[in-house]
Amino acid sequence: MNGSLEVSELLHALFLVGIVAEAMTAALAAGKREMDWLGVAMLGCVTALGGGSTRDVVLGHYPLTWVAHPYYLLLTSGAALLTIAIARYMHRLRNIFLFLDAVGLVVFTVIGCNVAIGLNLPVVIIIASGMITGCVGGVLRDILCNSIPLLFRAELYATVSILTGLLYIGGLHMQWHHDLVMAAAMIFGLTLRLLALRYGWSMPKFIYGGNIH
Amino acid sequence: MNGSLEVSELLHALFLVGIVAEAMTAALAAGKREMDWLGVAMLGCVTALGGGSTRDVVLGHYPLTWVAHPYYLLLTSGAALLTIAIARYMHRLRNIFLFLDAVGLVVFTVIGCNVAIGLNLPVVIIIASGMITGCVGGVLRDILCNSIPLLFRAELYATVSILTGLLYIGGLHMQWHHDLVMAAAMIFGLTLRLLALRYGWSMPKFIYGGNIH
Amino acid sequence: MNGSLEVSELLHALFLVGIVAEAMTAALAAGKREMDWLGVAMLGCVTALGGGSTRDVVLGHYPLTWVAHPYYLLLTSGAALLTIAIARYMHRLRNIFLFLDAVGLVVFTVIGCNVAIGLNLPVVIIIASGMITGCVGGVLRDILCNSIPLLFRAELYATVSILTGLLYIGGLHMQWHHDLVMAAAMIFGLTLRLLALRYGWSMPKFIYGGNIH
Repeated sequence: MNGSLEVSELLHALFLVGIVAEAMTAALAAGKREMDWLGVAMLGCVTALGGGSTRDVVLGHYPLTWVAHPYYLLLTSGAALLTIAIARYMHRLRNIFLFLDAVGLVVFTVIGCNVAIGLNLPVVIIIASGMITGCVGGVLRDILCNSIPLLFRAELYATVSILTGLLYIGGLHMQWHHDLVMAAAMIFGLTLRLLALRYGWSMPKFIYGGNIH
Repeated sequence: MNGSLEVSELLHALFLVGIVAEAMTAALAAGKREMDWLGVAMLGCVTALGGGSTRDVVLGHYPLTWVAHPYYLLLTSGAALLTIAIARYMHRLRNIFLFLDAVGLVVFTVIGCNVAIGLNLPVVIIIASGMITGCVGGVLRDILCNSIPLLFRAELYATVSILTGLLYIGGLHMQWHHDLVMAAAMIFGLTLRLLALRYGWSMPKFIYGGNIH
Repeated sequence: MNGSLEVSELLHALFLVGIVAEAMTAALAAGKREMDWLGVAMLGCVTALGGGSTRDVVLGHYPLTWVAHPYYLLLTSGAALLTIAIARYMHRLRNIFLFLDAVGLVVFTVIGCNVAIGLNLPVVIIIASGMITGCVGGVLRDILCNSIPLLFRAELYATVSILTGLLYIGGLHMQWHHDLVMAAAMIFGLTLRLLALRYGWSMPKFIYGGNIH
């Protein structure tokens, strides 16, 4: 939280990259479901900003980010609409978007941890706050698209968020230099996510065939 | 916000009509899914009051409408249960309900805008607040019925809400007479929605067949 | 609210039993959907703690229970993960879990009522607060598993919550002894739920085959 001004500006720039990337991948999910243009824009906003909004509602941290900065709504809905125009080239950009989405994941995680740290919350909640910020947007996207959330089954997505948060808090606890700790946590998380994508790493699944009720 | 007393009473009466109409159409959706009577009542409440509740939670505007006025819960669950009794006649009343649902849409939109105006929020958030109030109830209904939200694919539903909000705020910004502006915005929105239903107008769809992940 | 210390400790112990039981049944639901281990843990947390969290967000009652007591997150995710290890024996424990889940339902209901009573809210909202606390966790579980919420179709689940709440408030209103009223309401609710499970009692369903839109 005592990071230098340049670093907090870099974090903000990466946050903008992250929400644009999330809005654009959400737009493709909307296109799969044949939503109309306004639905595309709304799904983009909810996916990109829903994680931070859920965190803020859960922690009672008002005003929500996009209420304080309404242009985030314009940026994410604009990015989602732009995706309609360039959809035919998106498969060529697939790797770039997977990379940017991974950047978003670790940036959102660190920002979510910082919000909880700023509220003096305990470690478990700081980790949870980072994970909610990083992952819930995609869960909301999947619910609105009527799918089982990919998060619960995908390549180390939430795992990356938790480990990034743990590394970040652990480093701060050691009183190492804030900016270095943050950079190390984000680079670690980003690398892990990209390796998981590359080699198809995933958590073991729990497969249960019995009756529940 | 400086409307006359009579007009604010009329707005409140139309609000009651709107939540009753939304609860009744939600009850039919519940019947499609063979929910039990209590499920019908709950889906009615959530659909009719969920838009305003989401707005209030997102804006930190407490207490929520139905917490301050608990009889809204009784009114909407009562309306939903009544629908069970008269379901066999509902198809004859179809056009009336589409009309009342459209009334609810524009009334909820104006009320949502007013809440955000009262909190001194910027224009983008005022529009968003109107749209959340007007549209999110139906989204919650569709999620609970395990459908893809109709909002993202239906006849200008959210579009009507946005345009109604824009007209309303634009008029207030011009410092025209509050009641006239509100009436004009609502009549415009209502007309647009009914024309969209009549002629099957809809936003262009985004259809994407590529791989996302 | 003026219960003795021993009773409030007993209520707390039953609350812990309830969240563990809910997390474990949620883990089985996650296994049905082949979620990964982290997904299992997260679904356990959301199911066990989601009802109380929704109540607190809706009533503006901060901080949320698990934010104030982070070990609830560890307890419920631990219970969910433990379920993976013992899943093969779970069908033999089926009746125990149905019993513990019913205990959770009435305990959550009474706790939810108490929160609303502590905020001086009217009777309808106290009942609603109890029902949200008791039932919404299961609704969130079903949404995240992409099912129609069982609540809207299951054996008197929400009904038990409403009747337990009514009995509890009614008794308090009569100024009977708090602990006796609470015990009576919970035993009544538990008995009703178990009878409903045993004899397959359910609310009448509303089945509608017409067109909605």
